[in-house]
Amino acid sequence: MNAHRFGDDEVRGVYRAIYERRDVRSAFLSDPIPAPMLRRLLDAAHHAPSVGFMQPARFIVVRDPALRAQIHANFERADSAAAALYQDERAALYRRLKLAAIMDAPVNVCVLCENDTPRGAGLGRASMPETSLYSTVCAVQNLWLAARAEGLGIGWVSILDPAQVRATLAIPDTATLVAYLCLGYVSAFADEPDLQRQGWEFRAPLEEVVFAERFGLREYNAAPDGSS
Amino acid sequence: MNAHRFGDDEVRGVYRAIYERRDVRSAFLSDPIPAPMLRRLLDAAHHAPSVGFMQPARFIVVRDPALRAQIHANFERADSAAAALYQDERAALYRRLKLAAIMDAPVNVCVLCENDTPRGAGLGRASMPETSLYSTVCAVQNLWLAARAEGLGIGWVSILDPAQVRATLAIPDTATLVAYLCLGYVSAFADEPDLQRQGWEFRAPLEEVVFAERFGLREYNAAPDGSS
Repeated sequence: MNAHRFGDDEVRGVYRAIYERRDVRSAFLSDPIPAPMLRRLLDAAHHAPSVGFMQPARFIVVRDPALRAQIHANFERADSAAAALYQDERAALYRRLKLAAIMDAPVNVCVLCENDTPRGAGLGRASMPETSLYSTVCAVQNLWLAARAEGLGIGWVSILDPAQVRATLAIPDTATLVAYLCLGYVSAFADEPDLQRQGWEFRAPLEEVVFAERFGLREYNAAPDGSS
Repeated sequence: MNAHRFGDDEVRGVYRAIYERRDVRSAFLSDPIPAPMLRRLLDAAHHAPSVGFMQPARFIVVRDPALRAQIHANFERADSAAAALYQDERAALYRRLKLAAIMDAPVNVCVLCENDTPRGAGLGRASMPETSLYSTVCAVQNLWLAARAEGLGIGWVSILDPAQVRATLAIPDTATLVAYLCLGYVSAFADEPDLQRQGWEFRAPLEEVVFAERFGLREYNAAPDGSS
């Protein structure tokens, strides 16, 4: 019926990557990542869509333990500051969460959006200039899904002071820090997101996030039992 | 060796989706998208990573031709304004590009970031609040890759005045317009990006975008012949 559809196993691979991807924080192994595999993952990221074919995503592969220790110290400061924003049970729960694995994972990848490039000649950015950042995020998601298929985990660390990351990794003013990722083999992929397993938040039903024609008009009616 | 790696066919499916995904503008068919397929794609998008498990992505499925005509008129105005920014050969080339398929594709999907939600309780956003937007972009890329596996094309239209899109689709101030997508069956997927085929821009070698340890330090040496 549809000649452009992938084979069943290939389609299943795509959905498996999407549903079995996890934000990994506590299950990293220290085993090194083979260079050809890392290159495959980075090339997959580099093939993300980009506005005007601008290709703004840049990747810094951080292995040096001294640099990672600086980033980890940055995380610890930001994490303490964030923890102070919660009270009572939320505060106690927050402090039990493991939210980064900067030293555990053998490789960190800092993902940047480079705005100082003639590539793309500005196409698609006149009315929505933020799409260069969004292109860079698409590269992150490609990397994450390809890694999952290859059996590697990724954790995205956003509890960081971007200015300090810039200083540590010599990032120029022309580039924007988009994502700081921890990458490595894992002992296991959890069945559900860590934050759900630990009671921080639960998945919204699909009905709650999809609208028809205009914002707020329901595309789907929620099932009577609340399931999606 | 790695028990968490997918089967070979499944891994190939993920890489095929990444490498064979295209930003489709000129090959859409008007055939309707079956409701179960659209729901699968939206559920795949809904399973994107999100900061603090906040799940900020919202999806408006736009089918109404009258609404799409308003968005198309918005595009035409933004496109004319953007075209005026180029001179000489670039201007002539720009005018030859087809950059949107709002009326051709049977379904449009407007993707928003809803900031007015208690979900996630702010986790991960104290130092990098922009990660709610980035979570929403991850949902776009999930949708795009799942669609490619199912044999459907997507085109991302960024040549739009966001304020006018908000008015057309009754988007409240609490939500940010992230992406406006055209979705449908296609007559063909091009072998290379349209903008490369038409001479607007060419893919950068991987060597140019990957650094080691610090920004600007080469992770890979470019091959002598410039190939990657």
